[in-house]
Amino acid sequence: MVLHRFFRFALLFFISSSLIYPQANEHFISNYSKISETIVRKSLTENIGYAWLKELCEIGPRLSGSEESLEAINWAKEKMIRRSFDKVWLQPVMVPKWVRGKIESAQISESNKYLGRKLNITALGGSDGTSNDGITSQIIEVRSFEELKEKRELVKGKIVFFNRPFDQGLVNTFEGYGKAVDQRTRGAIEAAKYGAIASIVRSVTSKNDNVPHTGVMLYDTLYQRIPGCSIGINDADFLSIAIKDEPALEVTIKLDCANLPEVQSYNVIGEITGSEKPNEIIVVGGHFDSWDKGCGAHDDGAPSIQTMEVLDLLRRLDIKPRRTIRCVLFINEENGSRGGIEYGKYAKNPEETHIAAIESDRGAFTPRGFSVTADSSVIKKMQDWLPILNLTHIDWIKPGGSGVDVSYIKNAKALIGFVPDDQRYMDVHHSDNDTFETVNPREMQLGTAAITIMALLLSDGL
Amino acid sequence: MVLHRFFRFALLFFISSSLIYPQANEHFISNYSKISETIVRKSLTENIGYAWLKELCEIGPRLSGSEESLEAINWAKEKMIRRSFDKVWLQPVMVPKWVRGKIESAQISESNKYLGRKLNITALGGSDGTSNDGITSQIIEVRSFEELKEKRELVKGKIVFFNRPFDQGLVNTFEGYGKAVDQRTRGAIEAAKYGAIASIVRSVTSKNDNVPHTGVMLYDTLYQRIPGCSIGINDADFLSIAIKDEPALEVTIKLDCANLPEVQSYNVIGEITGSEKPNEIIVVGGHFDSWDKGCGAHDDGAPSIQTMEVLDLLRRLDIKPRRTIRCVLFINEENGSRGGIEYGKYAKNPEETHIAAIESDRGAFTPRGFSVTADSSVIKKMQDWLPILNLTHIDWIKPGGSGVDVSYIKNAKALIGFVPDDQRYMDVHHSDNDTFETVNPREMQLGTAAITIMALLLSDGL
Repeated sequence: MVLHRFFRFALLFFISSSLIYPQANEHFISNYSKISETIVRKSLTENIGYAWLKELCEIGPRLSGSEESLEAINWAKEKMIRRSFDKVWLQPVMVPKWVRGKIESAQISESNKYLGRKLNITALGGSDGTSNDGITSQIIEVRSFEELKEKRELVKGKIVFFNRPFDQGLVNTFEGYGKAVDQRTRGAIEAAKYGAIASIVRSVTSKNDNVPHTGVMLYDTLYQRIPGCSIGINDADFLSIAIKDEPALEVTIKLDCANLPEVQSYNVIGEITGSEKPNEIIVVGGHFDSWDKGCGAHDDGAPSIQTMEVLDLLRRLDIKPRRTIRCVLFINEENGSRGGIEYGKYAKNPEETHIAAIESDRGAFTPRGFSVTADSSVIKKMQDWLPILNLTHIDWIKPGGSGVDVSYIKNAKALIGFVPDDQRYMDVHHSDNDTFETVNPREMQLGTAAITIMALLLSDGL
Repeated sequence: MVLHRFFRFALLFFISSSLIYPQANEHFISNYSKISETIVRKSLTENIGYAWLKELCEIGPRLSGSEESLEAINWAKEKMIRRSFDKVWLQPVMVPKWVRGKIESAQISESNKYLGRKLNITALGGSDGTSNDGITSQIIEVRSFEELKEKRELVKGKIVFFNRPFDQGLVNTFEGYGKAVDQRTRGAIEAAKYGAIASIVRSVTSKNDNVPHTGVMLYDTLYQRIPGCSIGINDADFLSIAIKDEPALEVTIKLDCANLPEVQSYNVIGEITGSEKPNEIIVVGGHFDSWDKGCGAHDDGAPSIQTMEVLDLLRRLDIKPRRTIRCVLFINEENGSRGGIEYGKYAKNPEETHIAAIESDRGAFTPRGFSVTADSSVIKKMQDWLPILNLTHIDWIKPGGSGVDVSYIKNAKALIGFVPDDQRYMDVHHSDNDTFETVNPREMQLGTAAITIMALLLSDGL
């Protein structure tokens, strides 16, 4: 960086007088503001990451262990090599392999009024399939595990329908998601406790349509492994009315999804080596796997590509960070976090020190802030950078969680989550709505600029 | 308000000791935070304004003086009456009437390679039409009025093509707009100065597509009134290449738009009368006219409906503001500001005092902040409310401009612009892209909550 000489000069004074510090800080802010302006302009005008996202989406969704995920991994590795990152490698990771199969259907199979009516469902990730004949039974609707427990006498041999809606009254859509998603993750376990034979879960989404949203579900070795699926919310509302109308109504569910043996996969890693402290690492990353719906554009295609472009932007602008900036595209966040865990092990190697890590896994919407896990003195220092980050519409830096994958990196000074606007994320998340077309190029590229600037400040200023 | 007794109580102490003030303020923040939580929840869960927007969009776009604009005005008045606002009235305003007509086309009419190629254009608002045969001529491309002046010898009898792009490198899209829009507003005047016979302007937009964006253009009585149109940016890029390839290429433009005599229109006004200070007014409003493209959903249908719903939300929650909160739907912001000017005259009447006014005219995207024209002490006081406004993702209150329409209200303590996220606004602005489907219900309703809370705080706390 152009500032090195100044820093050494300032340091001499700093030792003799702490009064010099604010001045040094002022120069830092002023110099990095100028550099950041070039980063913002380049990101917004060249749209390189957005073009990469189009290529990635054309490969298809990237479910861990799938052919498409391996093709995408290869695509990213080749891209990093062609863009002349200093080092590029694949880190081997064993991942679970779940396949959706070709059949997933639900239909009303016993009813006076609704016979034959189809329901828009999709298998939850990790679910076992049904037999070829499917599962046929009456429906027990509940809104919570407490209500399920109260109705436990009715559950045996039935299909449990978890129908607690996403709470639109909560401003933060991640909070809305968090308060509904237990039905999806643990619904099949809780229903199986009382002898249910399948579970249907109202899609966890903020959008009023009929597209089912998938996502991981769990089993517990103590209970029967029953199939689990989600249902579009319009059909969830219909089903709720229909079974009040005809309690003896029956639904037949057919799924041929399956859990297969683990397979080999990889984290994709590329870096720009630090000019002064090559063994001190700033990680930027997102998860490269997705669900097998839409193309995983917002979750987490565009955000992981933002972190790839961080390195490319620095290259295109010939900015040489003092510390190493490393992009890690983590595999298998959605159903195992194996990539995050594996990188966490690697990060313990004594030849490197991980200073900080930024995760981008909240969609590619307009930047709002950064959520930071760090000592208060570190957060205070980062907050001093806000006049620079404001250039990208970043309005705040607050204490808070970072992200699933970087949380496995221990002993870093700061683990950071990039926080874009959240209002549209749960409209598309884990569903066929999550397509390339829903990503706005300016919103994505402004996020890329925000992460790039933060990475550079961490490299040169922390 | 439930707080009145507390206020009177606090006031007694305030007289004897200024130390009590911070405590009173703390109570104010705490009490209005609770009220604001109910406002946010109601807005996000009931989606009343979003449903109103659908009705409004079904009427069609609302160009000043059009049948649809009068139908929309009547719709809004009836809605306010049915929702039991305390007073509802129409304020008569004479407005210009411009009609697009049925013909607008541009085609390459002389060329070896491109003969017959159509160009995607639209008439600019206020443009005169062409004769039935249209205008046919060679094209002179320029990027600025300076370049036009340099090329003035070449312009006579030609069509001037203003092709300076929207600067995507600027983060604030309103700044990008501001730096390109002179070509649209004054292009025909500048071209006519040197004898041009028509002007074509590159659409002022942040979106990479071929949809032309309209908007107002001006004439100057000193120069010939030549027709003006805008062109989709993909066709602008094509035309630029084509005329380098074949400088003698000719284009024929046909427009049957026309300026007709002024007609009668109206501002729609509704209010909830203040419980303590009925003659002190807080205005909330947006402009109700739009261009005749798409349905004017973001500009300014949804934002003006947000301000209608402010009053309705207070009603639904039985919140009784101390001062009168008045919604003004201004007519004719797009091509004359007659509604704003007329309301400004009315606001001078000595029986009322206008305390503050909030304008919503930047699209219905996620809230970011409020831009305020006021004394610094007033802005400081409003900034103390940020912990409350944060509930709606409002991160800042800064000195700055308010809005075109409320700027005609003189002597108010504060004129305020609601500032939502700006990244997608210029994608849709003044074009067929500005449809109901591009409005996200959560983003719109969160904005409604932000404006409602600000209006209530101004009523009860300023």
